[in-house]
Amino acid sequence: MDAREIRIAAVRVDGEVARGANLGEALARSGARVADGDIVVVTQKAVSKAEGRVVELAGVAPSALALGIASEYGKDARVVELVLSEARRIVRMGRGVIITETRGGLVCANSGVDESNVARGSAALLPEDADASARRVRSEVAAACGADVGVIISDTFGRPFRTGQVDCAIGAAGIAPSEDHAGRPDSFGRALRTTDIAVADELASAAELAMGKARSCPMAVIGGTGIAVGGGAPASSLLRDAREDLFR
Amino acid sequence: MDAREIRIAAVRVDGEVARGANLGEALARSGARVADGDIVVVTQKAVSKAEGRVVELAGVAPSALALGIASEYGKDARVVELVLSEARRIVRMGRGVIITETRGGLVCANSGVDESNVARGSAALLPEDADASARRVRSEVAAACGADVGVIISDTFGRPFRTGQVDCAIGAAGIAPSEDHAGRPDSFGRALRTTDIAVADELASAAELAMGKARSCPMAVIGGTGIAVGGGAPASSLLRDAREDLFR
Repeated sequence: MDAREIRIAAVRVDGEVARGANLGEALARSGARVADGDIVVVTQKAVSKAEGRVVELAGVAPSALALGIASEYGKDARVVELVLSEARRIVRMGRGVIITETRGGLVCANSGVDESNVARGSAALLPEDADASARRVRSEVAAACGADVGVIISDTFGRPFRTGQVDCAIGAAGIAPSEDHAGRPDSFGRALRTTDIAVADELASAAELAMGKARSCPMAVIGGTGIAVGGGAPASSLLRDAREDLFR
Repeated sequence: MDAREIRIAAVRVDGEVARGANLGEALARSGARVADGDIVVVTQKAVSKAEGRVVELAGVAPSALALGIASEYGKDARVVELVLSEARRIVRMGRGVIITETRGGLVCANSGVDESNVARGSAALLPEDADASARRVRSEVAAACGADVGVIISDTFGRPFRTGQVDCAIGAAGIAPSEDHAGRPDSFGRALRTTDIAVADELASAAELAMGKARSCPMAVIGGTGIAVGGGAPASSLLRDAREDLFR
């Protein structure tokens, strides 16, 4: 394949994403250029808002377990209750951090429950099924922008071994989330053995560089990747089976 | 900050990177456009070759431990010997995988020892000090291209919880590897609490999308990030202390 140039444009959206918002129409209204084969990255927060996955904490009744954890960790017991109700397994607890496996199989802090960039007194939950969200956004973009694109729903995760956070793909539609190089020749004509690049996560990270935080840019359009659009697989294909994970 | 457009150009280099090669001059010869404030990402493999960190396996005498592990895992005992000699700690072993903490503090498979894209019968080791490598490349780029750039040395790592691999920053010079958003207001004017984006890792991942594998593109130039160049901190600042890691 040839050397290539990739372009990543952050998309500014005026005002808050409302419940029921059509993100394809928001993208069209922004004036961003979107072409066939581009990849549109949308933040989890924007998708959760559009899907009404924002919960008012005043209506949450914490369990005894949530009250106990919250008291030990200095957290809001109602938020801890949401974290527990979104989890199917506690992977680690310590140092004030709760790492869970969500009902959708993601391993992340606080089941992805997040109080930033939502109205005070409320918290955003992850989409029920972020791959389904990606498929819906892909249809919305096709209808509103007339472009056949790949879609990634991104979220910001910490990780073991390394400090800081990077954006990962929690949902995908219209692209293959990983690019298996096994069998492809290396520069010496020898077959590459174990390289299986999680391009969807790299695309999410690349988009984050353009979108940043707190800048009213819940989307980015990436062009020039050479990644085939159409078909593909869900982002859930990037979830390692717990039985094959040396760290669970 | 405004919505931005980021551009990532892969840099094709003719022929193999030779021991002692000046990567700044290779970049200048490629004809790539490089401007003040750009970020140049160089693969670990290119740096290791330039630094002579390629070992002929014929000269490696495996220890009894290396022979034992190699026999159990179906690996080349000489490669396992290199993996052990580059490690200061075995973090996990299982399923044919050896996860180590390298002498430089990275947690990765096989201490980063890699037989792909090197001559048959040899293996590449990680640079002795990838932050020092990044500083040297930065000086070489300044001299050869006349541009004040940030430099990242990238490598391809697997990770817990998720399948596939993404590129991370193992060396950095002239930029801050993470961008701390703590205290910055979110869209609701509330201070973001824990967001500390590992931008160096995101830049490495973004560059991988353009460079791909086995395409004679050991470098990429990234423009338009808005990341300040000059000063900064080493990529080793992204290494989580083992005592603060819930997964070690």
